[in-house]
This record gives sequence, C-alpha cells and structure tokens, in this order.
Amino acid sequence: MSTTTTQTIDQLAAAAASAAPIWRASSASQRAGWLRGIADALDANIDELVAIADEETRLGETRLRGEVGRTTGQLRLFATVVEEGSYLELTVDDADATATPPRPELRRILTGVGPVAAFSASNFPFAFSVAGGDTASALAAGNPVIVKAHSGHVRLSHRTAEIVTEALRAGGAPEGSFSLVEGREAGNALVQHPTIQAAGFTGSISGGRALFDLATGRPDPIPFYGELGSVNPVVITSAAVAARGETLAQGLVGSFTMGVGQFCTKPGVVFVPAGAGFEDLVASFATSSTGGPLLTDRITDAFPEGIAHLEADASVAVVAQGEEPAAGSARPIVLSTDAVAVAARPETLLEECFGPVTLLVRYSNEAELLSALEAVTGSLTATLHSEDGDDVDAVLEVLQRKAGRVLFAGWPTGVAVTWSQHHGGPWPATTSLHTSVGATAIRRFLRPLTFQDAPERLLPESLRDAALETLPHRRNGVLRVP
Amino acid sequence: MSTTTTQTIDQLAAAAASAAPIWRASSASQRAGWLRGIADALDANIDELVAIADEETRLGETRLRGEVGRTTGQLRLFATVVEEGSYLELTVDDADATATPPRPELRRILTGVGPVAAFSASNFPFAFSVAGGDTASALAAGNPVIVKAHSGHVRLSHRTAEIVTEALRAGGAPEGSFSLVEGREAGNALVQHPTIQAAGFTGSISGGRALFDLATGRPDPIPFYGELGSVNPVVITSAAVAARGETLAQGLVGSFTMGVGQFCTKPGVVFVPAGAGFEDLVASFATSSTGGPLLTDRITDAFPEGIAHLEADASVAVVAQGEEPAAGSARPIVLSTDAVAVAARPETLLEECFGPVTLLVRYSNEAELLSALEAVTGSLTATLHSEDGDDVDAVLEVLQRKAGRVLFAGWPTGVAVTWSQHHGGPWPATTSLHTSVGATAIRRFLRPLTFQDAPERLLPESLRDAALETLPHRRNGVLRVP
Repeated sequence: MSTTTTQTIDQLAAAAASAAPIWRASSASQRAGWLRGIADALDANIDELVAIADEETRLGETRLRGEVGRTTGQLRLFATVVEEGSYLELTVDDADATATPPRPELRRILTGVGPVAAFSASNFPFAFSVAGGDTASALAAGNPVIVKAHSGHVRLSHRTAEIVTEALRAGGAPEGSFSLVEGREAGNALVQHPTIQAAGFTGSISGGRALFDLATGRPDPIPFYGELGSVNPVVITSAAVAARGETLAQGLVGSFTMGVGQFCTKPGVVFVPAGAGFEDLVASFATSSTGGPLLTDRITDAFPEGIAHLEADASVAVVAQGEEPAAGSARPIVLSTDAVAVAARPETLLEECFGPVTLLVRYSNEAELLSALEAVTGSLTATLHSEDGDDVDAVLEVLQRKAGRVLFAGWPTGVAVTWSQHHGGPWPATTSLHTSVGATAIRRFLRPLTFQDAPERLLPESLRDAALETLPHRRNGVLRVP
Repeated sequence: MSTTTTQTIDQLAAAAASAAPIWRASSASQRAGWLRGIADALDANIDELVAIADEETRLGETRLRGEVGRTTGQLRLFATVVEEGSYLELTVDDADATATPPRPELRRILTGVGPVAAFSASNFPFAFSVAGGDTASALAAGNPVIVKAHSGHVRLSHRTAEIVTEALRAGGAPEGSFSLVEGREAGNALVQHPTIQAAGFTGSISGGRALFDLATGRPDPIPFYGELGSVNPVVITSAAVAARGETLAQGLVGSFTMGVGQFCTKPGVVFVPAGAGFEDLVASFATSSTGGPLLTDRITDAFPEGIAHLEADASVAVVAQGEEPAAGSARPIVLSTDAVAVAARPETLLEECFGPVTLLVRYSNEAELLSALEAVTGSLTATLHSEDGDDVDAVLEVLQRKAGRVLFAGWPTGVAVTWSQHHGGPWPATTSLHTSVGATAIRRFLRPLTFQDAPERLLPESLRDAALETLPHRRNGVLRVP
C-alpha cells in the first residue's frame, strides 16, 4: 500500500481550505442535495462496490449490500437533519435598552468548523469508511472532508472516493470538497495539519490513542472524535434466566457471533447468576454456531492470541466452541470465569477481544456483581436482562455510568441510525461527549458563532428574520417551532 | 498560600462521587431550587463579600457589586435553563417492527458527566470564580463541583465556598456536592483525579495549556474546557472613521481601559485605515484616560514587560499615554504599528498583553488588511466597524473564522449572560467547540445516554411519556414544544 506524500496532503488541504467558506455558506437545500447526490451515486454503483468489498473484506454479499443501504440511508438522514434545521441551534436575544447594562442584539448559530479528517474503520467498509458516518455528518455540518483510507480495503476506498467526488462535482460542489489519502504516516500528518479543524475515527484503542495524542498535542489542539474500544457488558438476573433462559442464550450466541464477532457493540462480557444453569444453555446453542473468515490477516492472528491471553488466567474455562471452521476461519468460543476474578484482574479479563468470543462471568450475589461491574471500563452499550420483580437500581446506576446506551431487551449488535441513537460512551468507548452514529453526530463538526448588532444583510441567511419564520429557533428564551 | 493535600483531595473526590448519582437523578425543581438558593445566599451576604473582594483584588466596590449581581443572575439563568428542559435534548424514536432490520424503541437524554473541576480566574472574583459560570453550569447539568481557588483572592474563595456549601445543605443537597481546594499542585492533582470527569478553566494560555495537557494525557482523557487568551481584533473602515471617527475613538478608549484592561474581551489590536486621522482621534481621548491598580503583583510586573516587548519592534510607536497614575497603578497606553509588520512578525506583535494597552495597526489596502488578519490567532470576539457602502465580505469571512462572536456596533468588553451568548472561539480563545458564558455552557458537562426498550419504571423521570407532555422533545424526528 502506498502512502500519500506530504506535498499531496498540503495540496489537498489547501483545496479543502478553499472549499470551506463555500460549504459553510451553502444553503440547506444545496447541502442536502449534495448528500443525496452521493447516496444516489453509491446506490447506482452498488453491484460494483459490493463485489470489490467482498474481495477485500470477505464479509459476504448479503451483509455488504445491507451495509450499502445503511450508508446511503445515513447520508439521506443527514440531508433531512440539514433541512429540518434544529441542528443550527438558532438563538436570538433581542436588544434590551432597559437592561443594566443595556443589552445588545445577539444572534447565535452553529457553523462548520472547517476541513475535517475522517479515518475509515476496518469492520464496516461502507458505513464507517469513505462515505460513512463521519464523512456524512462532517459534510452535513458544512465542512470539506479528507478521508484516510483503511488498509483493509484500499481498492474499495478509491472507488468509493471516485464516486463521491463525481457526485459532488455533478451537484456543483466546489473542488476540494472531498479527497482521500492513504498510509499511516499520511493519517498522522493529516491530524496534525494546520488546515484540519477536527477528526473522526473508529478503530482500535492503540491506534486511536496515538492519533488522539497527536491531535491534542498540536500547538493548536483540535477535537479528535474517536470511537475506540468497548466490551459491552451484559447483566442477566436469576429471574430472567428462569423466565427465558433459552431465548437469552440463543440471543447471546447470535449476537456475539454476528459479523464474526467484529462489531464494536459485540457483547464481550456477560454477568450470569452462578448455579442458574445459564452456561449450559449457552453451550447448547454455541456448539452449533458457525464462525467465518476475519477481516484482515492482523485480526486473524490476534484472535487466538486474545483467547490464549484469557485462558492463561487460572479462573478461565472453556464453556463451548462452535463448529469446526474452514481453514483460515475463526471458530466461535465461549469462556467463563467468576466475578471475584474479574474484580481482581480486570486488565486481563476485561480486555476487548475482536472476534467471535464472549466471556461469561458468574456472580453469587449483588455485591460481587457490583464490584466486578465497577471494574468494567467505559462501553458503547450495557445490557440488562431482568424481570419486573428484580431490584436493579444499584446495577442500573453503574451501567448508566459506564455506557452510552443501555438496553433492556435484545442485544447490542444492532445500531439503528436515528435521531435518538447514541453510539458513544466514557473512555475508551469514545474520546468525547458526542455520538458517532445518528442525527446528533453532526454536532461534532460545528462551532457556535454569535453575531452582535449585525445589519441584516451581513447575517447568515438562516439567522435573518425571514428564515426564522420557517426554522426552529429560540427567541428571548422561548423555543419556537414554525 | 497553603495547598490542599492529596489525602484531602481524595476525600473530597470520594464525597463528590457519592453525591453524583443524587445530582444526576435530581428533579428540575430540586436542582433549580439549589441554584436559586446559592444565588439568594450570595445576595444576602453581598456587603461582606464585596468588602473582602475589594481588599484582595482592588477592583472597587461599584464594579464588585455589579459582578455579584452578574453572578447571581447567572445562577438564576441556569435555574431557568434547567426548568425549561430543552438542554436535555429529549429524543424518542418509537419502535418500528416493519423497518429492516426491525427498530427498537430508543429514548435519548443528556445527563451529568459526573464530578467537575472548576478553576477560578483572577479577573472576575465572582463571575468566573467559586460560584461563577463553570460552577453554575456544572451544577445545573447535575454534577457535584470541586473548585480550585485562585491565589489572587483566597479569603474571598473560602467565604464564598462556605456560603455555597451552607446554601446547598440548607436546600437538602447531599454532602459532597461542592468543595474547594487551593494550590497549584492541588489543581494539577484535581484534573488528573480518576473521579473528575470534566474541567472548566479561565486563565492564561500557559496555565491553561499545562492543565489541558494533564487532562488529555490521562489514561482516560477528560474534556478540559479552557478559555485561555484572546486579542479580540477590531477592524475599522475609512468610511466608518469619516462617519463617526470621534465616537469610535472614544468607545475604543473606554473599552480597552475598562477594568484596567483586564477583561478577556479587551480590544487588543485595532486595524485602522492609514492616513484617515484615527490615531489622532484616539490620542485625544487616551491622554485623559485613567488607569488603576492591577489585580495581582504578577500582573503588575508583567504589564510593563509586555509593553517593552512590543516597543522593541522597530515598527512600533507610542500614540498616547493616559494620565500619570498613582504609585503602583498602571497607565493606559496606545501603541501603533502597520499591517505589513504584523503579517511578518505576528508572534511579537499579536501576543495578548493583559492591562490597559491597545495596538493600532495601520493598513493601506484590503490585501494588507487581510494578510495581517490571517495572522491573528483564534479570539473570543472580532469587531467590524463599517458603513453600509463598504464591501466587507472578504474581511467578514476571516473574522468569522477567527472568532466566536462578531460585533458590528459597540465594543467587545460587555458579555451579556443570555441564551444566545457565545464566549469562546478557535484556539487559544477556547480549547473546545463550546461557550463558557450563557445558557449553552451547560452542554459542556452533559453526556448523551440512550435507553433501548426500557420499561417505563426504569427510565429517568424526564424520559417518561408523562414528562414528555410538558417538556420540549423530538419524537420520531419531529420537534415538539408543549
């Protein structure tokens, strides 16, 4: 794989800087049109894109077709977000000459931060890659984007970037709106480039931390929105096992093996009541589960290492393994330990392990459970399977503190792209207090700008009185929806 | 000045951690009551507080009384913000079994991040100190607060903290809701303490950068909201000088000498048309301006050093000085240079200098002006004084990019505490894409939390259907104001 040269990065950054004021000043309908144009172009080329992606990622056509749909749906959701206009947080305080001191007129809007760097992920070659969520939300916010391709799907990245670039050009967007770089050094250079004003990233804790340190270590630090790692704890009560143990066991196996265990929301650690027979139920489903090829050679190598690392702990036993896989494929595995061991050695037992593995953690009482849960680091999700009669207040307090999304039914491996989604959580789940999926992801790439006593002709279009008649806004403290 | 010991910090942090779930779960009326209780208690003790503050800061009774009013008004604004409820960003997407894949019910709320560290500033012993904006917005967001006192007003800090603590106790808030530490080492320990989840700061670039590096360098980085430094550029056109030069000159002198030039929004660099006679107008007002004592010995020493640093540049000349001050007081001074020198040596000529000094920068044409403006670093404010006939598009594009608040009349040294205020800007003005003044400052101390398929009894009160009937929220994409 080649690396984009520093000279080329400078050129792309200069082009992005030239495009930035045009994006910032673009109207809602223009910008929504650009986003929908990209979505339409991707849909029109789905056969070709899926074929390349399948060759590079081995994820299979069904999954990849679905992911293209998710990606274009995401672009269209952001077009709707832009048109709806709440994201601008339009706020007006009229002048008040009678206040002490007299108050000027203030009009506040959120505006694009400037050129954004978006880092592609390995595990979602469409939805978290070149035209994925970071790109869609950064463009929606009114910013040019430079994407760092993931080494796991370089050809797909180039082809996707071509389609995006052509669609933007066809829609009349300025040159410099979008470009692609590749190579680790190029990524490092990008996040440190004076032109880049924010970065989005989905990937490993080590890779994300290195880029975070570069972004925050700049002479002028920029926000680095990383989604890094998550063990996604699940807690199951005795009453839940008694009421629906088989359904839960089946659901768990389906969830931890989904996408060959390579989702960032995979349930990696499951707290189960000791002696309730849940391990046997899980084993009964896990033995017939199937694995598959992992995304990259690196992930393929790391999977058995991660399992060996867990098994090296004296408390860990194998509960079940899935069907013997084809050569080169990963075999699902369920391990078990107990809550006392987890509380004592969280660094060993609670490390995220990419691939189809989950760790059942037996707890004998609430105190054991709570102290093991306290050892769990920040996660994207936490799941609680309980029954109406259970007193779950203390457990829920910890889960809410540890995770960004708390589930009370189902499994965390589905992430709906909607207005209310939150895909984020305390470190290391994410590096910020923002989501990377869903409508509000746009806030990451916006900054406030307030106009004081501005003549109407010098205000951004959306802040003029005529526009306020059609857009959600707050005036003198009162929120109004036209 | 003493330093709070590590052991004490651990105790205060543990108490804050215990209080955090209670604050997070507190109702809007409870929390608003606590904020108003603090405001009432400060107002009730204004005479004593102002007397201590005047001894420690030399700012004078009139200014200090006004600042107490600003501080209690700020606390009451945040009580209103909490009651109004938009800040929760309540968002519900109902389940949709017909979607592919079927969509669960999702309910999103913003909730407190956990214990917050608030660093006091030297220049506003009330409004940006113990019970200032960071504290008010962090409490409003539902978080306990530990304040680091500023060494410039330690006695006032302790007395204010006592009043705050007593008011919270009287209102029934839990122990650990609020505490005070002092000493630089204590501040460093605080921002690195595992319990602290976010920090607010107003102060110098060097002090803020050091704390920012500690906060982002943690094993688990936390957001550090610093408001650091700002030169607040002003641009005046020839037409504006011709139309109202005298008024502008008088306003500028009033603004740069206000608070003895120690406001973070002081106009530090003023771009003026060459040959339009504006320097003479400024001189005519500046010569009768008066200075005063600076806040601390350190600032008193740094002021002449800053001026000497500017005067060492061959391009810099003295335009005027204010009246000879009393011993130990600072004398206002107006310096001048030209845009070519500024573009060539921005590090020297555009460094923020605390105290009553401003630098007039002559420009001969728009190209000179624009290239000097590009050299200005991020600022809290930018001011443009122009006339209707002026073509200011290019200048305005730069000013909007460089600053968080753009003024078209008046001067930047007033910062109204309102819903639409933005007090922030690109680095080094602030370290984040958020304001430190005004209603939306609350967002800094909140994180999203989404509940998936939760039984109603386990939802936070505000996310239940009954509460949604009285609170602004979005449901299935539609924003609703009850």
